[in-house]
Amino acid sequence: MTLLLKEIRSNPILWLLVFVPIVFVAAKLWPEAHTLLFVLSILAIVPLATLLSSATESVATKTGDAVGGLLNATLGNLTELIIALAALKAGEYTLVKASVAGAIVANSLFMLGASFLLGGLKYHTQEFNRHGARLQTCLLFLATIAIMTPSAIVDAESPQTAFTQQLSVGLSVLLIGTYALGLLFSLWTHREVFAGAAHHEAGEATWPTGLALAVLAGVTVLVALTSEVFVESVQEAAKTFGMTPAFVGFIVVALVGGAAEMASAFAGARKDRLDLSVGIALGSAAQIALFVAPVLVLLSYVIGPTPMDLRFWPGAVIMVFIATITAFLMTSTGRSAWFVGVFVLMVYLVFAMTLYLMPPATL
Amino acid sequence: MTLLLKEIRSNPILWLLVFVPIVFVAAKLWPEAHTLLFVLSILAIVPLATLLSSATESVATKTGDAVGGLLNATLGNLTELIIALAALKAGEYTLVKASVAGAIVANSLFMLGASFLLGGLKYHTQEFNRHGARLQTCLLFLATIAIMTPSAIVDAESPQTAFTQQLSVGLSVLLIGTYALGLLFSLWTHREVFAGAAHHEAGEATWPTGLALAVLAGVTVLVALTSEVFVESVQEAAKTFGMTPAFVGFIVVALVGGAAEMASAFAGARKDRLDLSVGIALGSAAQIALFVAPVLVLLSYVIGPTPMDLRFWPGAVIMVFIATITAFLMTSTGRSAWFVGVFVLMVYLVFAMTLYLMPPATL
Amino acid sequence: MTLLLKEIRSNPILWLLVFVPIVFVAAKLWPEAHTLLFVLSILAIVPLATLLSSATESVATKTGDAVGGLLNATLGNLTELIIALAALKAGEYTLVKASVAGAIVANSLFMLGASFLLGGLKYHTQEFNRHGARLQTCLLFLATIAIMTPSAIVDAESPQTAFTQQLSVGLSVLLIGTYALGLLFSLWTHREVFAGAAHHEAGEATWPTGLALAVLAGVTVLVALTSEVFVESVQEAAKTFGMTPAFVGFIVVALVGGAAEMASAFAGARKDRLDLSVGIALGSAAQIALFVAPVLVLLSYVIGPTPMDLRFWPGAVIMVFIATITAFLMTSTGRSAWFVGVFVLMVYLVFAMTLYLMPPATL
Repeated sequence: MTLLLKEIRSNPILWLLVFVPIVFVAAKLWPEAHTLLFVLSILAIVPLATLLSSATESVATKTGDAVGGLLNATLGNLTELIIALAALKAGEYTLVKASVAGAIVANSLFMLGASFLLGGLKYHTQEFNRHGARLQTCLLFLATIAIMTPSAIVDAESPQTAFTQQLSVGLSVLLIGTYALGLLFSLWTHREVFAGAAHHEAGEATWPTGLALAVLAGVTVLVALTSEVFVESVQEAAKTFGMTPAFVGFIVVALVGGAAEMASAFAGARKDRLDLSVGIALGSAAQIALFVAPVLVLLSYVIGPTPMDLRFWPGAVIMVFIATITAFLMTSTGRSAWFVGVFVLMVYLVFAMTLYLMPPATL
Repeated sequence: MTLLLKEIRSNPILWLLVFVPIVFVAAKLWPEAHTLLFVLSILAIVPLATLLSSATESVATKTGDAVGGLLNATLGNLTELIIALAALKAGEYTLVKASVAGAIVANSLFMLGASFLLGGLKYHTQEFNRHGARLQTCLLFLATIAIMTPSAIVDAESPQTAFTQQLSVGLSVLLIGTYALGLLFSLWTHREVFAGAAHHEAGEATWPTGLALAVLAGVTVLVALTSEVFVESVQEAAKTFGMTPAFVGFIVVALVGGAAEMASAFAGARKDRLDLSVGIALGSAAQIALFVAPVLVLLSYVIGPTPMDLRFWPGAVIMVFIATITAFLMTSTGRSAWFVGVFVLMVYLVFAMTLYLMPPATL
Repeated sequence: MTLLLKEIRSNPILWLLVFVPIVFVAAKLWPEAHTLLFVLSILAIVPLATLLSSATESVATKTGDAVGGLLNATLGNLTELIIALAALKAGEYTLVKASVAGAIVANSLFMLGASFLLGGLKYHTQEFNRHGARLQTCLLFLATIAIMTPSAIVDAESPQTAFTQQLSVGLSVLLIGTYALGLLFSLWTHREVFAGAAHHEAGEATWPTGLALAVLAGVTVLVALTSEVFVESVQEAAKTFGMTPAFVGFIVVALVGGAAEMASAFAGARKDRLDLSVGIALGSAAQIALFVAPVLVLLSYVIGPTPMDLRFWPGAVIMVFIATITAFLMTSTGRSAWFVGVFVLMVYLVFAMTLYLMPPATL
């Protein structure tokens, strides 16, 4: 506890933690003040994300970057899963799918690209374990194929409700199984292939594991609660800022929802620990595609008003497909420099610009 | 001959050879008993495939894995060519095209993936000559481009019979020429690049080359004849098992039709001779795409009722395209482990699942 | 000047320079004799291209192949920019876009493939700096994404004139900015990564830099003027040769327009200086996609009758996309042999064949 207070005192960003209780009080008192809640929730998420990042790094120094990245990605996606479950219960499947696709694209382009750029501005070239990146992008590729193939093969005009539902369940089970086998492969049978470079930072004081894990768990819950306030206020608030619903759904929600993971990924890049950054960015994207999304499909049979299928808006499928290819190509050498980051960010910017300017459409 | 009998006595699977004469007698006596003929022909193809695999390995130990793989692929595709010629004469172009596309996908996904998985369950990691795999997947990529481009560039509504026929002939000649140049490149001018690792298995008795070649030729003919019974019975039999025509055409026919090659490829993988497995799987796929299919187009002008063109059902084109990319990505490092096999098989499973569940459609 | 005359005397191709004044006189006297002007302008462009190639090599021996290639590509594209500006002023946006897309495809397939083939027929294998090729193909990939994404994401039926124009301007600025950052990266911050192999050709006499630069500038202007005569006569002349407008726009114009750069690229390949060849081919393609095309979009607001957008004929987008993937795959190893050239040329031949045979369509 003393360590935690010391950390807070020494880092001015953490002083923003005061907004965490404020946002909950405000959400109770003025649930209709969307723009206020929108600003307050962002102010509260930033310090929580920073805290989560410190805790993750402390754990990662003990477990290695591969496991540390997986842990961070899982905790980050836990919040997304919690938010998506609320939307699932309400039957808002368009929102669920947009947040899933947006998170995949944000992680594999924005988080990856910004990590490369931030790291590259400090170090001339950086190296990372390309086998890990390769595994994650291949998993993403499989998910993209699973989502694309049915709509590409089956004639769009034929009646297909029963077919789509059966196939969605089958593909969901297949994706979850592949994800489980991938974990078995990378963390057990061939873990030596995926081990990152060792980091001996003697001078740096890390938190005891118990404290770090407690902070990880506690802050994750707070992030989930704050994110919920954010999601509820964002669409209304966005209108006052003149943003299209597609831009909010795919870009704004995904960026704020991934703030905690991004803080960890960026900190890793600045410390020349790209294995951690790439592991969080691509590991999180793969986990959403092969675990979170299929689990939501299966859960929709239990808690949703009607079954949800795996079919996405074609624009979303194309963005996920291009993001997967870009991430694959940019991580295949295991080396990076600042321009690699610029390149990946530019692909993201093409998407953001298109969504920002596009006329309102049915997603 | 004594060697052959000894082989048969020592391997219980080969006792199934007794079904080879049985299936021919049954086909004569009860040509309408589709389900019976379906089961009998599968029981007859399995031991023939095993025999073919032993003969191929005996030849391959003398010629090296690259030539051995080509030999095996060519003999395997000879049977497919024979079957396709019968369908071509009858003007059943949809069946011809489905079997061509199905064979490409089965070879480059199922045969490759199962080889990786079977080898990976025995060896921690396996290596193979990635230059050979690269050449074959690039050839496949060219065939995919040749099939995709015309329909992508030309407006679908415009009248195009004459155009499509001229273009199909032109592209067929181009593909056959490229395939011939590829053989010149890999077997002659740059053969040192494609040489696999040497295999000195002193303890293993191999057949004399004369016997091996005679078995190869004889068994190939028997496989072709048995396959014909199989193809004739499969569509009717499949209905009694509740399979869609698309699933039968792309999956069942392709798997049984490739049984002989698969037996050789899997045996190679279990003996850590992945060069042989990859050579058969991708070499066979490339040969079908760049030689068998174009030859069928050209022959349709001689023996078919009307000219056949190179246009495929869009779903088939997409499956071939994804199979090509998957094979390319998975063989680019020249190393494999069990999960690589799982991954490739999962892509195949996505296709199989979609075709199995899809509503009946016009291919 | 003596050196220049000596060069002309020793190289019979340069005697064709006499056609340069002839074509200008003929264009004045008989502006309607399209077939004559078509033949004369090709006869004049060939020696000019040869001269340009000698001058480029002289400069490249001083600056290194990377800068030499960029210089050559820029000068080559300057002529294309000049021609396009004339078409832009006249509001002929279809012609402008066809020449842009045709030049990208011709450079990244025909020029690259022919360089590999010509080099490979002389040398068993050739090596080049794969980092340079990687950067250029990635830039091309970004341009393809920028052109594809908007039409893929936005519903085709929705009203979108204002959206398309805003987005085209935004994407144009983004592409130009990325291109500038790419130059900063490859010529400044990480130039050691992109340095080609050193070439010490002691025996070869090169021109003084002053002469080489003067020839470069002067001949570029002559090529631009001759090209203009060529472009004006080609469509009418093509009709007498029975070519479709699409074939002329994408293939003939692009090949003749790139003659000068091709002469340099081919000469480099024959001297085992593939870095120069790859640098010209892919550097020029990337420059057209990320600099020339966006600049034309922005300039259309100043000099065009109406704003030009970045939307291309879908067939053109697909050809550029396939060309980019092909160039990326074929240059990723940094090694080449004759068959690599054959392969790349075959992809180009598929396009050329399709465009030659296709029924007239609205591009």
